[in-house]
Amino acid sequence: MNKEDFFIKQIQNSKYNGDDGAFIDGYVYSMDAFFEDIHFKKEWIKEGNISLKQIAYKSMLVNISDAIAMNAKPKYALITIAIPKTYTQNELKELADGFKKAARDYDFEIIGGDTIENHKLDISITIISKTENPIYRKDVKIGDFICYTGKLGDSKKGLESLLKGQKIKKNSKFIKPKLRADFFYEASKYINSSMDISDGLFLDLEKLSIASNIGFEFFKDIKEEIGTSGEEYEILFSASLKNLKKIENIAKKHKVKLNYFAKAVKGSYKSGFSNHHFKN
Amino acid sequence: MNKEDFFIKQIQNSKYNGDDGAFIDGYVYSMDAFFEDIHFKKEWIKEGNISLKQIAYKSMLVNISDAIAMNAKPKYALITIAIPKTYTQNELKELADGFKKAARDYDFEIIGGDTIENHKLDISITIISKTENPIYRKDVKIGDFICYTGKLGDSKKGLESLLKGQKIKKNSKFIKPKLRADFFYEASKYINSSMDISDGLFLDLEKLSIASNIGFEFFKDIKEEIGTSGEEYEILFSASLKNLKKIENIAKKHKVKLNYFAKAVKGSYKSGFSNHHFKN
Repeated sequence: MNKEDFFIKQIQNSKYNGDDGAFIDGYVYSMDAFFEDIHFKKEWIKEGNISLKQIAYKSMLVNISDAIAMNAKPKYALITIAIPKTYTQNELKELADGFKKAARDYDFEIIGGDTIENHKLDISITIISKTENPIYRKDVKIGDFICYTGKLGDSKKGLESLLKGQKIKKNSKFIKPKLRADFFYEASKYINSSMDISDGLFLDLEKLSIASNIGFEFFKDIKEEIGTSGEEYEILFSASLKNLKKIENIAKKHKVKLNYFAKAVKGSYKSGFSNHHFKN
Repeated sequence: MNKEDFFIKQIQNSKYNGDDGAFIDGYVYSMDAFFEDIHFKKEWIKEGNISLKQIAYKSMLVNISDAIAMNAKPKYALITIAIPKTYTQNELKELADGFKKAARDYDFEIIGGDTIENHKLDISITIISKTENPIYRKDVKIGDFICYTGKLGDSKKGLESLLKGQKIKKNSKFIKPKLRADFFYEASKYINSSMDISDGLFLDLEKLSIASNIGFEFFKDIKEEIGTSGEEYEILFSASLKNLKKIENIAKKHKVKLNYFAKAVKGSYKSGFSNHHFKN
């Protein structure tokens, strides 16, 4: 067992654990870290590959993605930010602009947090979102069709280019994830189970398998560069055969590509891959 | 204006900002960072002055303190923790034990968060607490008596000893803050305004002055080592003359020392001191 899993096992004793967020009394609470050297490198900023505004924006989107995958609408955010003392007022303004743009784009309010000085830029965000119909990881039914939205692989390519010091496109999904909020909220009543793809499809399928106690029968081959691309923030979901047509129509309306690739069966699924986050 | 204040000014546009936590719909949301090199040094752990369990416990208490100062009871916590890869399973267990002890002692549940690998130990915590009668910083009335609980100064002395590489007592308030939960919840109906003392009495008085748009007339001299001692987590509050006797009786019952030292008057108050957090 890796150390992250070991630690999580130590403190997890709540029925609310195990999903992208914790659903309590109409609200979903989710929290994610976005740290320099772990989620981004300061060289990328210096090289002009990503701006501080984009970093702040992405740190928010990563968190909003959890809310959407549970069919919840972000209402409030708390931001804890550790900032190097070398940052200028302009750089601080850029960061603030990124957070504020996300709050505007997704219509929520920044209600608090903590600001401290640090050696590097480290962001932690808590999103409080609202839903009347939370969707969990544990509700995949035997016979469900398994699907992901959009196109996978771009984020991994983006990361690899950045790590080689190469330029990447401004609209790379690694810099600006495409969240499927409008599609998913509308389709939610036909969805049985869901989560966002943050660690890569293979690893996230393993989590879905454990949560729902099911295995998968693949009817499409998933290539390694697709299945191991993390930080995609597309949605992985399951639905019954009878709802597929309705979901497809909603997807068409919102111009979201759907990829059905497996059916839920008795058994379990092991990915054989480990977490994609690069180590230092 | 220092950088922290500048940044906070950039993103603060919510009516919920400005207190120890944000009160919305029966709940208080608060979030605080507890970072290596900022709030503690790894040398202190090596020297046996503070354990990882105590660090985890204090990181929780610092956050619970915000809830108590708003008269709210902690219900749920989210923990984002960045852990050096050199940490052993035993060390991870120690951290988890510290978090779990705080959750037991204050009767709340750890419902989620994020665990990542990092160069150093950085903890961010969000506490979701419940109250029917939130107490804010903005409600000091002219003529109110201003008071703090307990004894101030010990935390600063503890920090100074640690920074000199000296041993400190296991029960030093710098390692284990004394929160005044039972006293404050019972006294809350007689309290007009409150906050916890985290940056030091002088700086926190300045915040209270700004929030309530009042000044202070001191009838006791506050020594510098008292007024500049941060991370005390005692409670600073204001109350009307007619309620002082009732508050004192409740304090006596809970063996909490009260220190009335000023009256709220028209005007404003400037501390003349800056944040105590040591820089690297």
